[in-house]
Amino acid sequence: MDLFKVHSIENAKKRILEVFSDLKIETEKIAIMESLNRISAQIVKSKINVPHFNRSTVDGYAVISGDVQGTSESMPMMLDIIGESEMGKENSCEILNGQCIYVPTGGMLPKGADSVVMIEYTEIFSEKSIAIYKPVARKENTMSIGDDVLVDQEVMEKNEVIRSKDIGVLASIGVKEIEVYKKPEVVLISTGDEIVEDIDNLQIGKILDINTYTIANLLKASGAIAMKTYVVKDEYNQLKEIITKSMTEADLVIVSGGSSMGEKDNTAKIFDKVGDIGVFIHGISIKPGKPTIVARGDNVPLIGLPGQPVSAMIVYRVIVDFLLQNVFKTIGLVEKKEKRILDRNVFASPGKDTYLMMRHYEEDGNLFITPVYGKSGMINLIAASTGYIIVNEDLEGYRKGEMVDFYYFI
Amino acid sequence: MDLFKVHSIENAKKRILEVFSDLKIETEKIAIMESLNRISAQIVKSKINVPHFNRSTVDGYAVISGDVQGTSESMPMMLDIIGESEMGKENSCEILNGQCIYVPTGGMLPKGADSVVMIEYTEIFSEKSIAIYKPVARKENTMSIGDDVLVDQEVMEKNEVIRSKDIGVLASIGVKEIEVYKKPEVVLISTGDEIVEDIDNLQIGKILDINTYTIANLLKASGAIAMKTYVVKDEYNQLKEIITKSMTEADLVIVSGGSSMGEKDNTAKIFDKVGDIGVFIHGISIKPGKPTIVARGDNVPLIGLPGQPVSAMIVYRVIVDFLLQNVFKTIGLVEKKEKRILDRNVFASPGKDTYLMMRHYEEDGNLFITPVYGKSGMINLIAASTGYIIVNEDLEGYRKGEMVDFYYFI
Repeated sequence: MDLFKVHSIENAKKRILEVFSDLKIETEKIAIMESLNRISAQIVKSKINVPHFNRSTVDGYAVISGDVQGTSESMPMMLDIIGESEMGKENSCEILNGQCIYVPTGGMLPKGADSVVMIEYTEIFSEKSIAIYKPVARKENTMSIGDDVLVDQEVMEKNEVIRSKDIGVLASIGVKEIEVYKKPEVVLISTGDEIVEDIDNLQIGKILDINTYTIANLLKASGAIAMKTYVVKDEYNQLKEIITKSMTEADLVIVSGGSSMGEKDNTAKIFDKVGDIGVFIHGISIKPGKPTIVARGDNVPLIGLPGQPVSAMIVYRVIVDFLLQNVFKTIGLVEKKEKRILDRNVFASPGKDTYLMMRHYEEDGNLFITPVYGKSGMINLIAASTGYIIVNEDLEGYRKGEMVDFYYFI
Repeated sequence: MDLFKVHSIENAKKRILEVFSDLKIETEKIAIMESLNRISAQIVKSKINVPHFNRSTVDGYAVISGDVQGTSESMPMMLDIIGESEMGKENSCEILNGQCIYVPTGGMLPKGADSVVMIEYTEIFSEKSIAIYKPVARKENTMSIGDDVLVDQEVMEKNEVIRSKDIGVLASIGVKEIEVYKKPEVVLISTGDEIVEDIDNLQIGKILDINTYTIANLLKASGAIAMKTYVVKDEYNQLKEIITKSMTEADLVIVSGGSSMGEKDNTAKIFDKVGDIGVFIHGISIKPGKPTIVARGDNVPLIGLPGQPVSAMIVYRVIVDFLLQNVFKTIGLVEKKEKRILDRNVFASPGKDTYLMMRHYEEDGNLFITPVYGKSGMINLIAASTGYIIVNEDLEGYRKGEMVDFYYFI
C-alpha cells in the first residue's frame, strides 16, 4: 500500500494502464441493429462485391462510348433505343454499335454498354430513336462490380466505436452480427453511517443517498451497467463481505465514501486485504477529489470515490471513465464542450487540477459562464451548476473576460 | 401541396414549429433512476428541508461562538469537552458557556452550539479539556435546517434535460419518480424497388437496405424509438396502406426513398392524400438532401427522406432531429464538434447549405480533416468518412489551412 504519495492525474492513468494491462476483457456477438456506440472486437471483411452488378449512377441512356465520341450540341449522334433497364430487375439486353437502352439511377447496365449519357444531354425523336448531344468517357456515370467494395475488403477495424453510419455499412454488405466487447458490469456501493436509501428512514442525523443515482447513470452514459447497488454502513466486516462477494460477480467494484485516511475510513484497508495487488493509488492531485483509491483485487479493479457527491462525479469523469474506456473498451462519456466567457475572476490551488462548478447563460449574444459556489456537499451547488471548467495544476486561475473551455454535465 | 418552392432550412424549421404547434405530446411517470436524458414535464419542488437538522461542515468542536472571541495562537481559550456527536445519529447533548463537543463533518450540532472550530485550530489537553486557538463567527462551519434546500423550493424546472446530477438532486430530497415526455415511437419505412432486407434475396439488380439501420440508430441516439420497420417496393397502394396503418400506431412516420418528383416517386402523393394538411414542405436548400418532404397526416408528422443513405442521414440531422427535439421534446443528437484544419480547398454550391463528408487525422500534433469524395450512394464514402463540415449557403467553400467546425458522426 502506497499511502502517502499523491499521484498526478497523468501518473495515475499510466499506473492504471500498467496494472490492468493483463485483464481479460470478454466479447460477445450481437445484432448490428443493437451495436450503436459499442466497440468492435473484430475486423469485418466483405463477403460480397458492391455493387454485384454493373449499374448506372444517373438517369440516362447506356451506350458504347465509342459511338458518341465527337458529338456536340450542333453535331448530335442518333442511336436506336432497343429497350429499358427496370429498377431492381436483372437486365438481359445486349447492345451493339448504334444502340442504347434507358437506365434509371441504380439500374443494371446491359451487356455491351460501357457508359451512360445523362438524360439532360439527350433528345427523343421517336419511340425507337434518340439524339445524343454529349460524348462520354468509358465507365462514365457507371459503377462496375466491386467498384465500391471488393470481396475481402476490410470495412471495419477492430477497437473502433460503432456509429450509426458503420451499422449502415455493415448492413450494405449483408453482415447481421458483430463481435463487440461486453459492457462491464459494475457493483456500486455507497457507504457512510449517515446515508439512507429511503425518505421513510430519514431520521435526524441521516441524509439520503445521492451517489448511487449519479454514478449509476454516469456508468450508463459511459457504456457500462450498474448491475447491483448497495447502501451500507461504514462498518469494516459488513463492507468487506459485500466487496468480496461483488468481486466474484462484477467486472468492476466502486465504493463511494470512506476513502479518506481517517480512522473510520475502511475502503482502502479492505481493498488492500481482498486481492493480490491491493491499493496502488491513494490520493490524486485534483480538487475536489483528492481522496481517491484505485486497487486491484485479483482480476477485478476496485475504485474508492470520495463520498461528497460533486467530488465523486469529478473523480468518475477523470478516473472511472478513463478506466472504462481504456481497460474495458467502452465508448466513455461524450461530453459537450464549448468556449465561453468567464464573467468574473476565479482562483484555484496551484499543484492540483481544480474543477470549478459553473452555470452558463447568454447575454447580448455572448456566451457566458459564472462560478457557482457552495459549501462542500451542498445540493444547491449541484442543482445550480450546469457544467464545469478545469484550471490546470500550473495555473492560479482565470481572469474575468477570458475564454475558457466549459464542459456541460452529462 | 406546395411542390415547387424550395425552402431554406430556417424557413422549413419555422414552418414545422407552426404546423405542429397544437400537437399533443404525451407524458409518463418514470423512476428517476431511469430518467437520464429524458425531458422533465413537471416542476419539482422539495417536500423536505435539506439539511433537516443543524450539521457541521467540518471535523471539529461545536462551540458557542461568543466563548472563543478574541482567541489566538498565543491566547487560547480552554473549553470543557462534554461529549461527542456520532455520525448518522441524533445528538441530544446541549452545551452551555465554556463547553464544547466533538462533531465530525456532517454530524449533528448539539443544542446551544452556533458554530464549529476546525480540529486544526484545537489542541486536546486532557480527556475533558481542549484549547481553542482561533475565533469563529456565528454559523461558521455549520449548515442550519433548510440552508441548502427549503421546503417548497423549486429544484427542477419543466422542459429541462435530466442529467445525472439532476437525478442526484432529486434523490437527495427523496423524490423517486418524475413526469417526463414519452419517447416518440416511430415507424420507419424504407422504399425502393431495388431494396431487399436479406442477402439471400440479393439478386442481380437489387441492393441491401441501409437506411433502416442508420435511421433507426439515429432515432435511438435522439431519444426516440423505432417501433416498427418496413422495407417495401415503391408501389402506390402497398405504400399507402402501410403509411395509413402506421399513422394509427406511431407518433411519427418516416419514409426513406421515393421523395423526388419523378413519376415513380409516390411518397409525396401519398402524404398528400392521407391527412388533412398534407405536404407543406417539398424540397429544402441543402446539398445533398434537397428532395425532402414534410407533411402532416391528421395528428402525425410524416417525413420523406431521400433514399440515398448519406442524404438521408444529413436530412435526419437537420430536419428529423429538429422535429424530435422541438415538437416531441427529446434530448436530440449530442454531436461532438471541434475546430480542425482543412488540408485542401473545398468548393460548395452557393444558395444551399452544403454538407461535405470528411475524415479526421492528426499530423505533427495538428488536427486535420480531409474531404472524402465518392459517387453518390457509395458505401466507401460512408465508410471512409468520420464526420462532416457545413459550408453555409452564402459561402463558395473554404481554403486549405482554414479552421472549420468539424462534426463527428454519431
